[in-house]
Amino acid sequence: MKTAKEYEESLRRLNLVVYMFGKRIENIVDDPIIRPSMNSVALTYELAHIPEYEDLMTATSHITGEKINRFCHIHQSAEDLVKKTDMGRLLGAMTGSCFQRCVGMDALNALSITTFDIDAKHGTEYNKRFLTYLEYVQKNDLTCDGAMTDPKGDRSLPPHKQPDQDMYMHVVREEKDGIVVRGAKAHQTGAVNSHEVIIMPTIAMRAEDKEFAVSFALPSDAPGITYIMGRQSCDTRKMEKGKIDCGNPQFGGHEALVVFDDVFVPWERVFMYREYEFAGQLVEQFASYHRQSYACKAGVGDVLIGAAQTIAEYNGVQKASHIKDKIIEMNHLNETLYSGSVACACKGAREPSGTFLVNTLLANVCKQNVTRLPFEIARIAQDIAGGLMVTLPSEDDFNSPEVGKWLEKYFKANSSVSTTDRRKILRLIENICFGTAAVGYLTESMHGAGSPQAQRIMISRQADMIQKQFHAKRLCGITDETNGTTV
Amino acid sequence: MKTAKEYEESLRRLNLVVYMFGKRIENIVDDPIIRPSMNSVALTYELAHIPEYEDLMTATSHITGEKINRFCHIHQSAEDLVKKTDMGRLLGAMTGSCFQRCVGMDALNALSITTFDIDAKHGTEYNKRFLTYLEYVQKNDLTCDGAMTDPKGDRSLPPHKQPDQDMYMHVVREEKDGIVVRGAKAHQTGAVNSHEVIIMPTIAMRAEDKEFAVSFALPSDAPGITYIMGRQSCDTRKMEKGKIDCGNPQFGGHEALVVFDDVFVPWERVFMYREYEFAGQLVEQFASYHRQSYACKAGVGDVLIGAAQTIAEYNGVQKASHIKDKIIEMNHLNETLYSGSVACACKGAREPSGTFLVNTLLANVCKQNVTRLPFEIARIAQDIAGGLMVTLPSEDDFNSPEVGKWLEKYFKANSSVSTTDRRKILRLIENICFGTAAVGYLTESMHGAGSPQAQRIMISRQADMIQKQFHAKRLCGITDETNGTTV
Amino acid sequence: MKTAKEYEESLRRLNLVVYMFGKRIENIVDDPIIRPSMNSVALTYELAHIPEYEDLMTATSHITGEKINRFCHIHQSAEDLVKKTDMGRLLGAMTGSCFQRCVGMDALNALSITTFDIDAKHGTEYNKRFLTYLEYVQKNDLTCDGAMTDPKGDRSLPPHKQPDQDMYMHVVREEKDGIVVRGAKAHQTGAVNSHEVIIMPTIAMRAEDKEFAVSFALPSDAPGITYIMGRQSCDTRKMEKGKIDCGNPQFGGHEALVVFDDVFVPWERVFMYREYEFAGQLVEQFASYHRQSYACKAGVGDVLIGAAQTIAEYNGVQKASHIKDKIIEMNHLNETLYSGSVACACKGAREPSGTFLVNTLLANVCKQNVTRLPFEIARIAQDIAGGLMVTLPSEDDFNSPEVGKWLEKYFKANSSVSTTDRRKILRLIENICFGTAAVGYLTESMHGAGSPQAQRIMISRQADMIQKQFHAKRLCGITDETNGTTV
Amino acid sequence: MKTAKEYEESLRRLNLVVYMFGKRIENIVDDPIIRPSMNSVALTYELAHIPEYEDLMTATSHITGEKINRFCHIHQSAEDLVKKTDMGRLLGAMTGSCFQRCVGMDALNALSITTFDIDAKHGTEYNKRFLTYLEYVQKNDLTCDGAMTDPKGDRSLPPHKQPDQDMYMHVVREEKDGIVVRGAKAHQTGAVNSHEVIIMPTIAMRAEDKEFAVSFALPSDAPGITYIMGRQSCDTRKMEKGKIDCGNPQFGGHEALVVFDDVFVPWERVFMYREYEFAGQLVEQFASYHRQSYACKAGVGDVLIGAAQTIAEYNGVQKASHIKDKIIEMNHLNETLYSGSVACACKGAREPSGTFLVNTLLANVCKQNVTRLPFEIARIAQDIAGGLMVTLPSEDDFNSPEVGKWLEKYFKANSSVSTTDRRKILRLIENICFGTAAVGYLTESMHGAGSPQAQRIMISRQADMIQKQFHAKRLCGITDETNGTTV
Repeated sequence: MKTAKEYEESLRRLNLVVYMFGKRIENIVDDPIIRPSMNSVALTYELAHIPEYEDLMTATSHITGEKINRFCHIHQSAEDLVKKTDMGRLLGAMTGSCFQRCVGMDALNALSITTFDIDAKHGTEYNKRFLTYLEYVQKNDLTCDGAMTDPKGDRSLPPHKQPDQDMYMHVVREEKDGIVVRGAKAHQTGAVNSHEVIIMPTIAMRAEDKEFAVSFALPSDAPGITYIMGRQSCDTRKMEKGKIDCGNPQFGGHEALVVFDDVFVPWERVFMYREYEFAGQLVEQFASYHRQSYACKAGVGDVLIGAAQTIAEYNGVQKASHIKDKIIEMNHLNETLYSGSVACACKGAREPSGTFLVNTLLANVCKQNVTRLPFEIARIAQDIAGGLMVTLPSEDDFNSPEVGKWLEKYFKANSSVSTTDRRKILRLIENICFGTAAVGYLTESMHGAGSPQAQRIMISRQADMIQKQFHAKRLCGITDETNGTTV
Repeated sequence: MKTAKEYEESLRRLNLVVYMFGKRIENIVDDPIIRPSMNSVALTYELAHIPEYEDLMTATSHITGEKINRFCHIHQSAEDLVKKTDMGRLLGAMTGSCFQRCVGMDALNALSITTFDIDAKHGTEYNKRFLTYLEYVQKNDLTCDGAMTDPKGDRSLPPHKQPDQDMYMHVVREEKDGIVVRGAKAHQTGAVNSHEVIIMPTIAMRAEDKEFAVSFALPSDAPGITYIMGRQSCDTRKMEKGKIDCGNPQFGGHEALVVFDDVFVPWERVFMYREYEFAGQLVEQFASYHRQSYACKAGVGDVLIGAAQTIAEYNGVQKASHIKDKIIEMNHLNETLYSGSVACACKGAREPSGTFLVNTLLANVCKQNVTRLPFEIARIAQDIAGGLMVTLPSEDDFNSPEVGKWLEKYFKANSSVSTTDRRKILRLIENICFGTAAVGYLTESMHGAGSPQAQRIMISRQADMIQKQFHAKRLCGITDETNGTTV
Repeated sequence: MKTAKEYEESLRRLNLVVYMFGKRIENIVDDPIIRPSMNSVALTYELAHIPEYEDLMTATSHITGEKINRFCHIHQSAEDLVKKTDMGRLLGAMTGSCFQRCVGMDALNALSITTFDIDAKHGTEYNKRFLTYLEYVQKNDLTCDGAMTDPKGDRSLPPHKQPDQDMYMHVVREEKDGIVVRGAKAHQTGAVNSHEVIIMPTIAMRAEDKEFAVSFALPSDAPGITYIMGRQSCDTRKMEKGKIDCGNPQFGGHEALVVFDDVFVPWERVFMYREYEFAGQLVEQFASYHRQSYACKAGVGDVLIGAAQTIAEYNGVQKASHIKDKIIEMNHLNETLYSGSVACACKGAREPSGTFLVNTLLANVCKQNVTRLPFEIARIAQDIAGGLMVTLPSEDDFNSPEVGKWLEKYFKANSSVSTTDRRKILRLIENICFGTAAVGYLTESMHGAGSPQAQRIMISRQADMIQKQFHAKRLCGITDETNGTTV
Repeated sequence: MKTAKEYEESLRRLNLVVYMFGKRIENIVDDPIIRPSMNSVALTYELAHIPEYEDLMTATSHITGEKINRFCHIHQSAEDLVKKTDMGRLLGAMTGSCFQRCVGMDALNALSITTFDIDAKHGTEYNKRFLTYLEYVQKNDLTCDGAMTDPKGDRSLPPHKQPDQDMYMHVVREEKDGIVVRGAKAHQTGAVNSHEVIIMPTIAMRAEDKEFAVSFALPSDAPGITYIMGRQSCDTRKMEKGKIDCGNPQFGGHEALVVFDDVFVPWERVFMYREYEFAGQLVEQFASYHRQSYACKAGVGDVLIGAAQTIAEYNGVQKASHIKDKIIEMNHLNETLYSGSVACACKGAREPSGTFLVNTLLANVCKQNVTRLPFEIARIAQDIAGGLMVTLPSEDDFNSPEVGKWLEKYFKANSSVSTTDRRKILRLIENICFGTAAVGYLTESMHGAGSPQAQRIMISRQADMIQKQFHAKRLCGITDETNGTTV
């Protein structure tokens, strides 16, 4: 397993083509805007070497028997899935951010199932290829970007009917040793902190779309790949001299648009090609795993609850009954979110490939709550924080010889707490509610792993309505063809 | 294990003193108001003999190695706890009611821990007594009423300061072979369907209250015990000639006030006496188990969702997008409720006694959701059902030669569905939202196993705020005495 | 204006054909189940004679200049509309029930507009007929049942395509002096307490449905009209000897199916016939008025809040911060509901007929909140009330020589409060949350004046989206054909 | 009345001492960060000259009879109050921001009442002074900053016990012609866009605090006043070259800390001094007016709803039923918010001074909803907007010759909509949910005019619980000393 330092060094050796603010970034690792997101991923390496976290952060490879970082692991039991939940929460709490590495883990696990199932039907060798690739990932302890979301163009048209066919990743030509692909993947979390990018289709497909039914893996710096960074709320605060106004100066996340401009993929890295009838399964299983992954937001919730409690103490109001009640409510909502992830893990089951898959109904229910509860937690945090969270002058003002003294004087609340500490915790709350971390904690909670409606459709499909109607009819004495039997 | 028939017969042999509507009930088992609640308990016996349900409904006794009804089992693993959750949901769905037997199971499990812990501290023999009693319960497959809630009198006073000492169950005198107790237990679910009643204290106590720190078990027909039935909304519909207006004619639940008027308890049935410092633990552990038990409401929710879907079909509106969306929301909330119970079970851990206890933080979070979500599910059910649910004429009107024809004519919606079936499903919904089952599905969801504020206090105590503040302070760079270390 | 006594006597003179529990009711006024609903209507007469309430309860007729009961008044100003809101809240608080008389007032006001508008287009004389009728109603201070909801049969078919044409009220033949109608109106609130029944169509119609586009008024005992009472939760408690278990023994509401079996309507009582293009307007305006009318639920909410505060005091917990906070929340929700009714009244505007109509967007928003907030208020009331609300033994048990003493002893909480008073307030809460009043406070709040989705459709139509998009586009600098202008 | 241009010029003539990012701002009016907030205030001048808006934007002075900007008006009727509500919503929609001028209007109105009431008790001349001042404000059409919030220091101590007495504005000495004051006011909305600053105490006070019971007005550039700007989320985007990433480039709001370092106030500008028993009234009445003022958020809500509808159309999903339903819900919540402001205005009543005051119970209920509903509206907006709202690359990237082409290509959704327009509307949504406007739409909705708990305390005080309990007890038949009478 790599150390955090080795991880950072390995990134330096990559030759990524990354643009931000209209310019190519030469040194990605040290860029002040990107660096915090690299720090978050690095922590997934660091913690794996600390005995206290070993049980959560590492696992035993089912292919090599070696100890590996859990992010490279294929879940072999429901217990593994529960540990994944807890690892996510831990890292959310440790970084107060999106740590970006789960999406690759979820892609690997979904592919471990789908490649197996394709082979079973078509006699192909995708699973063998995949396992070879997996062993490479595990040995080198790589971070993978699991890339699913295509730009989609006109949402009312299927891939093959798009005026611009590149709106969905597709194969532009076959060559002897592989395929050449074109397209883009949007909203790619942690893309430029990754060694590998794993491409999956983004929707269920029909025969006409088979050129778009393609899944493969590439080194992140393969020729023809360009990354364009998304900008986040308050991103440029990280470029300011002072660090307090960042809120969370050390950690963050990032998203990028990844463009594939006729990129070559060797056959051994191709895990699906034209088996369109498996595109839907791959999407659903990846999505289910990734919906479970939002346990990380319970970790970020821990940070926000801790920050709310701290500012309440700094303001001297922590004993007010309404403050205590609001802290309880934040905890209640945060643990409800966490319970959903635990439940879908606990109720996970073995697929034919041997991989354990979460209970997909409960995973969708889990994620649906994630689209709601962090917003209410953040609302309560703003309630407790007070208006100062958004009217606090800048760090430069606090350092100013002319007005700094007045800020120190008038923003003092509790005599045992420095104004600096009060500012720091307020800026952290601002960061999670409105700043760079809000992207992950709120909007990504809404849309990551599928927007709310996607979960509702899955809930609709997976709730066993026949059984529920059976019970209802039996109890009130309705006998019809759907309800012929009784206990 | 008893069959349902043997269970019913065993109840007939009891000599319970039961009052309802001001009169003593001579034949409890066949009383039309009580009978449906007996049917619910009987189902816990019946299902244990059906292979399909064997895995959930039965377990292997850790003391005898024999197959027993799970309701008599001491949980030996987190898996056992998860099966308990699923058993509760199954029975909720099968009965559409409170099936009443979980409270005794939860009492047995809590006592298995507390008696062990008292012995460890005081060198007493409570656990041995308890295991002897447990073996008796398991062998005879008994239904136990776990009785905790004292009348409490003036809520601002502790037991020993109550003007009327009987407001908390207490020992009035010791005799050679046992103790004599006086007091009452309120809201006793399933009391008159039980073979045994297991008494526990209702609050944490201090030394001055030690005469009230008493736990014991008695046959339900021990001399001096009187049961006074609580009345439920729409209870007397069960006495009407027709059965449709009942909604759920076969199953139900009941609650009773149980009065102990100087009742003798032999020493071998006494499981705590004067060890006041363990009263709080017993309360908390019983409450935690019982808060998990509310998974049963997900089963009742299944019935209500099934009924809502059915009436939507009968009304011909099941394809309207807003109806579909409401069904999804009902399912989402119902599975959220269920996830909480699964999560606290999955995260359960072994106590020194060997018994597995649920994760108490998550159990409280689970129950807190139970105090909210069924109310919203019931609100949506009323939305889908339409106003007819509360303006439907009586069964006698439908049978009337003068007006029945008009009711048949005008309450026809979907030509393939009989007006009778439409009525039946509407009455079932009414039953769960307003009628006898509403007591269990709504008010008991609110107050059973402790009122909402009780859970909030527990959530407040058990959320690890130190850890959350540690993370928040570390991330924004606050260094203080509570936060000296960094990763 | 009639006194309450005169109102009661006038009802005795009617010859209504009413069925309940399969039998014809001979003496409706004194029937124990119907009587409380008559008492509620009677209060609308009584209060009009009490100086304290004169300003709210009476108005000056715009046709005769005489003082009339406001329930017979055509709103002449926004101030009149606001007084209507306050009258509704007052009566809701005074009865704790549905007082039933608003539906006729809303029908009269809607007809005052639509008849005018039809005449303006078609040169008919409906408005003149209507005003003559109105004067009769005002002079005799009559209670009118405004009847809109047809059975509807197969919801997917328009009236003229129904296999059974009677599913919508329709004209079966014309005669020289009038028309003969057939059909039924469901969920008729207060029907058997009314002197008159005013029929309106239930949906917008097209030319093919013109035989169904009919509105008229009839004496409630016109030959051919039959009433079949709907049953309510806990209805038969009113037939029990004791009165406490009723919760609210004096007041209530009722609903009935009203069947029109070839009933003759003289021309002077016909207010629309075949002007199908006005059916939609009449429905919408009646619905808007009636959605405003749900201010009455704020009055019932006042009762429930008062009851919750009272039981909190009786339980000795009224000073607990969480109880105080819950009472505040109940008040907040209740006043939010009320604010909606005030706002749509305040923003009311004059129609060409001279009648003031509520702001229809806000009236729909008001009613939409009514489909939600009472449910949450009732949930909180159950929280505060405690489980005893649903486990309290019957009145007969309290009176029993054998067990009454124990109930008195063990259900005593606060020494200064009698167990009887504690029971009374708990039964009142039960009545509003689960019993006869729950029909009005909850399910009727959901479906009365149109189900939630009906309001959502109206909100969708009436929100000025063009204007909103104009503002949004202008602010972010989008210039397109829909957005050419700037400030 | 001033024109917008005259307003801007008048600001240029002020000599304010303003600090931001540690430096004194020499040209405030043209500062890129402050300018948008000036534009918002300028619009309050501009609209007053446009006939379409005259009715809302202007009024007739009750002291001079002249036409004045409504922001300088003392409300003379409930109709005036309702127009104030509508003016706020209009400006919120026109600016998509906080337009800052309401706080001065609310201060003027509150002082018009309190100065009158002080004089009535103490025979002072505050009201005369105030009216002279008011005439000056009206004649010159001035923008006033109504300043209430003191830093408060240790929240557990009253003003006179603060270790640093400056934590509450106070008189440091009297001089012949006036007083000298010291202290600070935090969170001052629109402070540096104001001609005048009107100081009020921030809490109810007792005799010991009388030196802190002071209210007065000063020119905003009076010697000794220093402004320190609060920073907002994404503030520096306004300094970037491009304008699209701002979201709302033209309008905004601002907040500042205003420090009073021994500032002289002439007697004619002093409106309260030592009449501590009126401090609470002034706070409550100002707060009630200001809580009404949050109708402006319904205007910002209009913008956000319009933006959500627009992005739905740009994404081609506007006809999806779940999207339509979410737009309805946004409208429902937004109109609920608005209804609260209308209701408290409509129910306003005349004070002895002649000024109309809003209904204070309903004003608090209104504001309480404002602390909740915009958060849910913003959550839904993010749902509809999609994740692109937070992953969109920067304007520079779109303009980049290397990668701009890909962004144009891949962020195209609907062929009839330019990527630029899509970006603009997404950035506007980001601006309101996370950016500079989120400060006003969300956090200020939470804390402006008092934090949620402040409203709850007022709701608790003003709900007539005696009356509610009277109704409840009467209905269930409880007769006690508090309930002796019946109807």
